[in-house]
Amino acid sequence: MANDMLVGSLRCGIPSQPSPSDALVTAVEGTLAEFLSSQIATFDAVDPALGRFARTSRDLVLAGGKRLRPTFAHWGWRGVIGGREPIDPVLPALAALELMHTFALVHDDVMDGSDTRRGRPTAHRLFAAQHRHGGRLGDPDHFGATSAILVGDLCLVWADQLLAQAALTTATHFAVRACYDRMRVEAVAGQYLDVLGETEPQEWSLDRALVVARHKTASYTVQRPLLFGLALAGPARPGTTAVNDAYHEYGLAIGEAFQLRDDLLGVYGDPAVTGKPAGDDLRTGKPTVLVMLARQLATPAQRAALAHTPAGAVNPADGSGGPEPASPASRAATDERIARQAEIIAETGAVTRVEAMIRRRVDHAVTALRDAPVHDDARAALTELATTATHRPA
Amino acid sequence: MANDMLVGSLRCGIPSQPSPSDALVTAVEGTLAEFLSSQIATFDAVDPALGRFARTSRDLVLAGGKRLRPTFAHWGWRGVIGGREPIDPVLPALAALELMHTFALVHDDVMDGSDTRRGRPTAHRLFAAQHRHGGRLGDPDHFGATSAILVGDLCLVWADQLLAQAALTTATHFAVRACYDRMRVEAVAGQYLDVLGETEPQEWSLDRALVVARHKTASYTVQRPLLFGLALAGPARPGTTAVNDAYHEYGLAIGEAFQLRDDLLGVYGDPAVTGKPAGDDLRTGKPTVLVMLARQLATPAQRAALAHTPAGAVNPADGSGGPEPASPASRAATDERIARQAEIIAETGAVTRVEAMIRRRVDHAVTALRDAPVHDDARAALTELATTATHRPA
Repeated sequence: MANDMLVGSLRCGIPSQPSPSDALVTAVEGTLAEFLSSQIATFDAVDPALGRFARTSRDLVLAGGKRLRPTFAHWGWRGVIGGREPIDPVLPALAALELMHTFALVHDDVMDGSDTRRGRPTAHRLFAAQHRHGGRLGDPDHFGATSAILVGDLCLVWADQLLAQAALTTATHFAVRACYDRMRVEAVAGQYLDVLGETEPQEWSLDRALVVARHKTASYTVQRPLLFGLALAGPARPGTTAVNDAYHEYGLAIGEAFQLRDDLLGVYGDPAVTGKPAGDDLRTGKPTVLVMLARQLATPAQRAALAHTPAGAVNPADGSGGPEPASPASRAATDERIARQAEIIAETGAVTRVEAMIRRRVDHAVTALRDAPVHDDARAALTELATTATHRPA
Repeated sequence: MANDMLVGSLRCGIPSQPSPSDALVTAVEGTLAEFLSSQIATFDAVDPALGRFARTSRDLVLAGGKRLRPTFAHWGWRGVIGGREPIDPVLPALAALELMHTFALVHDDVMDGSDTRRGRPTAHRLFAAQHRHGGRLGDPDHFGATSAILVGDLCLVWADQLLAQAALTTATHFAVRACYDRMRVEAVAGQYLDVLGETEPQEWSLDRALVVARHKTASYTVQRPLLFGLALAGPARPGTTAVNDAYHEYGLAIGEAFQLRDDLLGVYGDPAVTGKPAGDDLRTGKPTVLVMLARQLATPAQRAALAHTPAGAVNPADGSGGPEPASPASRAATDERIARQAEIIAETGAVTRVEAMIRRRVDHAVTALRDAPVHDDARAALTELATTATHRPA
């Protein structure tokens, strides 16, 4: 079975944690915890309900995750600045990326009506559970969605406040912000296209799926964080142009490969590891690069089987509706259809192609880095990340 | 009828437009239009659908409105800097407040499920209308809400980008941003409390209603914009502390009075002018200062009549559900109940009290300004705004 094979290969010989980053993750989370506790004090002083709101927001920020964006930004910075420079002045900027990421995740989860994230209830679910019945907003799910939109908004503003705490020269601060702003615009644009793709899958193409991968993932997860790190290192010095070029190439390649791995996990990932239902992307009808490739490569019979996409809509407020029918019998039928579609996608050769695309991108990124004038520890860490970030089980 | 009396008094002798601001509004809208057209070009270059997304966002920003926040910020700045200083260096900062305001309105409208804003369809309605049926997000309302959340997010990032274009010294830039960040945090906190009030009206108090008014409206609409203008004027000079104090007092007083007027309009406003249904706050069960006061002052019989609040929930994604029953007969019954509640509120004396609260606040603000060392044209404009902003028909 393609399914088992893939999951098996994903689990072979890959270290579960990129080791040099442990200290960084601890430092970033410490910075976040300290910043958030001062914010909570301000909220408590106004109204106890605001204190609860701020605490729930903090818990969401500190609920774990791979902290990939601060990690890439850190190595982007270290690559230029070297290993001896103290990290404290830039820590608030690195941690700000994680606050911004919470904003993106919380709003995405509202839009997708997702129930869990990293094995815990999503923001709108947490707030729905806090709801006391009554009033116009008597629907807990409405209150949950509304509160989660506000948590996301708050995290985005908090990110700006934390970023302002980085001890940088003026010119550096402006350069960092310019990069950060571009990253945020690209993330919103990518998310809009992603949503549009799920709305108009019949209008989609392989090219557009790649545009989504580039904006929503490559730019936001790898490329801009690396360049953000480069900007943190301050004014241009000899070799900055070459580093900039290398980070652009590495960032785009590894970012795309990251999304391509996501595409594979979205069909073949182990629900126990990804925290999402098996074949989640097939359930939602997301026109990923993998799916678009499979459609291109499919025989007419295969294409017909793949074309059967769910018609129901998920309500962004409460996750009601959606492709999942209520009765156990029809749920079993859906599971069977999803499993069959996953097999067909592998049979078209699309999985092999996507694995090759990932490999090519990892090779390209590592080569781009090999010749760039970056410090050796950063090159080593980014070379390792090129593999771990694109060969992960979740 | 209290209703007619109030609307009548609102329309007497109030100039429809604070005249010195016309040129400012034109300049702010010109700055916005230029900025947005450069953004649209970037989006067009990626994908035509993104160009459409950016154009819809631009249209929402340029769809009119009172432009109160740039106006208060402008006079806060002029009060210190005087009338001769060219406005161009600070225009991007003034205009940024309006982009931030579009973010707030678009997200509020999603949360409230509002159909119209300033007589035009709200963001989520516009996107719902652009929806082509199909895909998982087959529900136009879901697509509309999702897209509107992203439009709001985009406007918030755009505001940061435009703010960065203001030609300010470093110290000034950081002071302006610190004020701007506080304003945004207070706006989100106020909005959360506002939402919570509609969810738990039974837990509400007059004090909490005033906290909402202070954060959601006073801080966000008047006080912080004025202080933002003060920060734009640059480093402290003789008299800055006195100006700061005066702006704090004026801002809080006029901001609260603005919200108190909003409370009255929410019950007695003319739907043709406010663009909202008659008695909108009573329909939604919002525990405003006016309503909390009425409950305090009411006789047991009056309190019982006021306690009848709608039980239905409005879905933030599509505005479905909600307190408005579908049949014409029950709608007429609701209209009658709302009209009767509006009468009772006036009979308790709450309307008279709120009018007196507004008057006291306007007097206080004008007095605070009278003795402050601000330039005369700014004092005159802010004194006029104290009245126009708190005696408006919509």
